[in-house]
Amino acid sequence: MAAPENTLHSTDSPLKRQREDEVNGVSDTLSKEPQPNGLSSVIPGWFSEISPMWPGEAHSLKVEKILFQGKSDYQDVMVFQSATYGKVLILDGVIQLTERDECAYQEMITHLPLCSIPNPKKVLVIGGGDGGVLREVARHSSVEKIDICEIDKMVVDVSKEYFPDIAVGFADPRVTLNIGDGVAFLKAAPEGTYDAVIVDSSDPIGPAQELFEKPFFESVARALRPGGVVCTQAESIWLHMHIIEDIVVNCRQVFKGSVNYAWTTVPTYPSGMIGFMLCSTEGPSVDFKHPVNPIDENDSQQAARPLKFYNREIHSAAFCLPSFAKRAIASKEN
Amino acid sequence: MAAPENTLHSTDSPLKRQREDEVNGVSDTLSKEPQPNGLSSVIPGWFSEISPMWPGEAHSLKVEKILFQGKSDYQDVMVFQSATYGKVLILDGVIQLTERDECAYQEMITHLPLCSIPNPKKVLVIGGGDGGVLREVARHSSVEKIDICEIDKMVVDVSKEYFPDIAVGFADPRVTLNIGDGVAFLKAAPEGTYDAVIVDSSDPIGPAQELFEKPFFESVARALRPGGVVCTQAESIWLHMHIIEDIVVNCRQVFKGSVNYAWTTVPTYPSGMIGFMLCSTEGPSVDFKHPVNPIDENDSQQAARPLKFYNREIHSAAFCLPSFAKRAIASKEN
Repeated sequence: MAAPENTLHSTDSPLKRQREDEVNGVSDTLSKEPQPNGLSSVIPGWFSEISPMWPGEAHSLKVEKILFQGKSDYQDVMVFQSATYGKVLILDGVIQLTERDECAYQEMITHLPLCSIPNPKKVLVIGGGDGGVLREVARHSSVEKIDICEIDKMVVDVSKEYFPDIAVGFADPRVTLNIGDGVAFLKAAPEGTYDAVIVDSSDPIGPAQELFEKPFFESVARALRPGGVVCTQAESIWLHMHIIEDIVVNCRQVFKGSVNYAWTTVPTYPSGMIGFMLCSTEGPSVDFKHPVNPIDENDSQQAARPLKFYNREIHSAAFCLPSFAKRAIASKEN
Repeated sequence: MAAPENTLHSTDSPLKRQREDEVNGVSDTLSKEPQPNGLSSVIPGWFSEISPMWPGEAHSLKVEKILFQGKSDYQDVMVFQSATYGKVLILDGVIQLTERDECAYQEMITHLPLCSIPNPKKVLVIGGGDGGVLREVARHSSVEKIDICEIDKMVVDVSKEYFPDIAVGFADPRVTLNIGDGVAFLKAAPEGTYDAVIVDSSDPIGPAQELFEKPFFESVARALRPGGVVCTQAESIWLHMHIIEDIVVNCRQVFKGSVNYAWTTVPTYPSGMIGFMLCSTEGPSVDFKHPVNPIDENDSQQAARPLKFYNREIHSAAFCLPSFAKRAIASKEN
């Protein structure tokens, strides 16, 4: 296949390459560095998600056709048509979304915070360059202004080209797109600007690393109004309990309202789930477990594109944790 | 490696075989029949779970050492030491349990039904030959008699040999092990015998097929006392909504108390989750969503081997479904 280029292009080359690493018919690819795009020789014709973030396991999807491969200033970007999960967006070899299950992540990371406060008006999205979180924020008629700061323009362009049902979020007139560093954007934001900040980041290896560190949380807290809320991607309790414990410790120091962990099923994420940290700043208290701002499913605005995943019951259920995770998080409480 | 035999043996042969299906360095193994044991040439040195039950995707675990391979009268049985999930039990190429995440499945399939009724005394387990469900049933001090009917003795023997922390369930003096057909066992059981029946089956392709059909549910209902409960493995809402809808229809016809679907996260099951049907027979009403029979975590009996996953909150949360699943199941209501 063509070498990655820093421009939009599509290719339908078959996924064939010589397997130089074979000895006696046996590949030991997995003990070496994975290919940056995941299209290694591991399973020819399939995409395998291999990462030091989840050693010893790999989820694979059958590839029908590669639609895009590129290399931005920040990461490798790939889109392929899968056999059974629709189109798939890959960044640095890691699945970001599939058309089949993106609803779970996008709806939960958005409505868990926005349904927990009355009348959110100003919302900031950090990351989220695919537009899916914007699409979900736009369901809230109280919202007047949606800022988004995505570091990688290629993600936005690719999403608009290949995922129109997700990138539709950019079409909302309340949205202002900023291409740049989310950390710098937050620092420059006037204090107390936002009702809610949603951090839709990739994993802490790569361009999103800073978004898991304490100075970033301090910037978020500063940019939020009193009693404002943040929801940030916070990994899986099955794989990364220690990362989560560190995030909890940081958040408890920074966010003086409440600090909670919630989770949702997402089949194509490692361990089949992903978690979120939901925190509020000092001010009007926020009880995340009991949403005060329901999305009315009978609203005519929602009828054309009904929620697939989120509802009031699953909102509250998301905060119920298995005992091992509950104990680990409780051990970090002040 | 040695050809499968119908006896217990262990092997530490490396997972190497010639790849006869290669042309020009490119394997198309996945378009052919998978190897029955999953140790295909797909990812040499790894186990890949490939099944027509979940086409187009495969979860793979890195294999450190194969501990057992055999062929029983019913299925291929394999145990391996994985790199990051502990020991793994495979039946007919499908992951049944790993030491790392078995707690989620075993605790939920057991305590969802048993914590929903007061003082369960007689419990029947169909399948569950690894002993994990028995281990969990045995936590309930009210229980006086635990029958288990497992069709495949090799599963029991292998579990006792390689998974002592799971097979420990067989050591409880209240347990009676029957090797045989669960369908026949239930038909022979006196009417109204059990307070609870737990159906810990594999998927509906293979020896467990009958356990997903209406005549089987009728036998279960007959063997239960009025207001008795059944919990049966019921697949994933992400992958098998149509199977679930069929099960719901069957259960609503057979179980005149209540019929509910619940689910839990299990990272090594396809789509990262598994569901359960929880039904009760006509009689004293059972509100599965509000458990009446909590397991006391402070009980000294539990202290040595505390629950890892189950608690009261996650019990109730398990019945909260994503909107797409809620709608599909509601559409099958009378």
